[in-house]
Amino acid sequence: MKGIRQLAKHLDISIGTVSRALNDKPDVNEETRKRVMAAAEELGYVANQSGRSLRQGTTNVIGLMIESSKETVENSDNFFLGLTGGLQSVLARHKLDLVMLPCPSDEDPYEYLKRMVARRVVDAMIISATQRIDRRIDLLVKAKIPFVALGRSSSGGNYTWIDLDFEGVAASAVDRLVAKGHRRIAIAAPSSDINLGYVFVDAYKQSLERHCIPYDPKLVIRVKSSEQGGYQAGHELLLLDNKPTAIILIYELMAIGLYRRLVEAGVVPGRDLAVIGFREEPRAKFLQPALTCFRMSLRDLGVELAETLLATMPAYAKFYPKGARNTIWPLELVPGESDAFFLNP
Amino acid sequence: MKGIRQLAKHLDISIGTVSRALNDKPDVNEETRKRVMAAAEELGYVANQSGRSLRQGTTNVIGLMIESSKETVENSDNFFLGLTGGLQSVLARHKLDLVMLPCPSDEDPYEYLKRMVARRVVDAMIISATQRIDRRIDLLVKAKIPFVALGRSSSGGNYTWIDLDFEGVAASAVDRLVAKGHRRIAIAAPSSDINLGYVFVDAYKQSLERHCIPYDPKLVIRVKSSEQGGYQAGHELLLLDNKPTAIILIYELMAIGLYRRLVEAGVVPGRDLAVIGFREEPRAKFLQPALTCFRMSLRDLGVELAETLLATMPAYAKFYPKGARNTIWPLELVPGESDAFFLNP
Repeated sequence: MKGIRQLAKHLDISIGTVSRALNDKPDVNEETRKRVMAAAEELGYVANQSGRSLRQGTTNVIGLMIESSKETVENSDNFFLGLTGGLQSVLARHKLDLVMLPCPSDEDPYEYLKRMVARRVVDAMIISATQRIDRRIDLLVKAKIPFVALGRSSSGGNYTWIDLDFEGVAASAVDRLVAKGHRRIAIAAPSSDINLGYVFVDAYKQSLERHCIPYDPKLVIRVKSSEQGGYQAGHELLLLDNKPTAIILIYELMAIGLYRRLVEAGVVPGRDLAVIGFREEPRAKFLQPALTCFRMSLRDLGVELAETLLATMPAYAKFYPKGARNTIWPLELVPGESDAFFLNP
Repeated sequence: MKGIRQLAKHLDISIGTVSRALNDKPDVNEETRKRVMAAAEELGYVANQSGRSLRQGTTNVIGLMIESSKETVENSDNFFLGLTGGLQSVLARHKLDLVMLPCPSDEDPYEYLKRMVARRVVDAMIISATQRIDRRIDLLVKAKIPFVALGRSSSGGNYTWIDLDFEGVAASAVDRLVAKGHRRIAIAAPSSDINLGYVFVDAYKQSLERHCIPYDPKLVIRVKSSEQGGYQAGHELLLLDNKPTAIILIYELMAIGLYRRLVEAGVVPGRDLAVIGFREEPRAKFLQPALTCFRMSLRDLGVELAETLLATMPAYAKFYPKGARNTIWPLELVPGESDAFFLNP
């Protein structure tokens, strides 16, 4: 790669003049500026922003740490890619770029993040898939890297998060099912230690309590957050002695696998079993009967994440007077046919 | 973030000793090393590798530039995420990390890449979705950034690429259909300027020629590389006067949309129309009748991409004696039922 020195030599102009031309300073005549730019293009000169970063202590790059587990890949999970448009629309206002940091499936996310922090690839970070105890939060707090967690955690420290409204989803799903006569309501919850599982199960229990329905731990079916997990949930549900009449899912693609297992067993969703899915997903749109689920805009969530993150960064906080607030991100019920029937009393 | 200076002050040890302890040099006693490491952890000290990079001229990070178009997101295209496992398994041997660089859908990929090169985020780059004329190749060649292109291009210069065997897919699909009596064979090709479209259409024409079948431009249906594009291809095919009896698709998710449009029109894939899909995809596995398509391992392709890229980098070339070769990546036919019937003569 050509540096400024080679460029100056090639043009037979002083380094200072070349630098001023490249940086669009006013004290360079137009002719010279054009010659410098043309030569820079021709010789493949690219400003070394790594040098700039070291002086300024910034890279102008924001990182989005994502999981790349076997499940994520096999399920073609579009969640993170769906966030990028909204994130980038905000970051572009400040000439910041987004990079995605895919944590290898066989590596501890804490160790991975520690290394990425050491590499100084990014100025600030969005972490996701927060665990109940998540040491990444302590690491970023201590290292004073501005960050936003997509997902809450029990890990301490004063940090900013945005999380989906799992409580609202659980409450409105349970209320809706109870109103149609259901009392035995199962949920398919993640088998991992991801924090959202705890939040959702707690909210489900509280919702049952409001309706004076006793909690039965057998109705909490723990499966992987995947299409296959949905299939497995259907399988386990069918094996229960005292079968539930309804099920609520906590991952968007579970519905596809669940429907498949139910159909295999001759159980018709929306007639023999009420089903409420989680986030509306293009691939689940073709399910018959249409799935009752919850809608949210990934793009808008991306915008909110970026604006919240920038509010935590001293250089940009002034543009975001709302500040670095913790936010519960709402989801809107989309009624379908999968839970439309009333249970005979 | 705490620097080495604050750490030394806190411990009341010289900066030199702290540095040697952190870098695991032998001339530091074990007790001191432990104290330094404990304090580093406690105070959130992280080595500034940005400083290191500037000296070494390296970041130890490899970039994978991806598209994040509306189609990619809506199709939950898992292609790039599927590559990461294989890429990372090779990069980890050399303590290198992978970042994904999602080019915003409203930005020119050339301008985006130019900025990412200037930011010096990565030491080397994998670019994808190569266009017929792709100025990114010239940019990387000129800037002397090691790179591998996933996809060929007509753009000049001496560069390394890996591409899928579109010629092999076209030839074996046409041969297979001709052997079953088809003479009017359509293809659904990308409407964009992506290079693979040209490669595929050329190979299709040559395959027809081998069988002395005249080429009919009406049978090349140009649509978006998406599920919706497959639906559109089905729609246009049904409007043709002299209908084809078979269709070959060039994008994996087109089959889902195509089947839907055919079923709506009462046309049964595998009975009324022969269909050959492109890459085998988890979501297309549930199509009935089972889709004839082509199998490849994204993980293995990721490994090949990483090894080829490292072979182009002076610091790693010695580990990859096969060198930086251009590779046509084979796909294996997976026979299904969607093209199993013989056409009545």
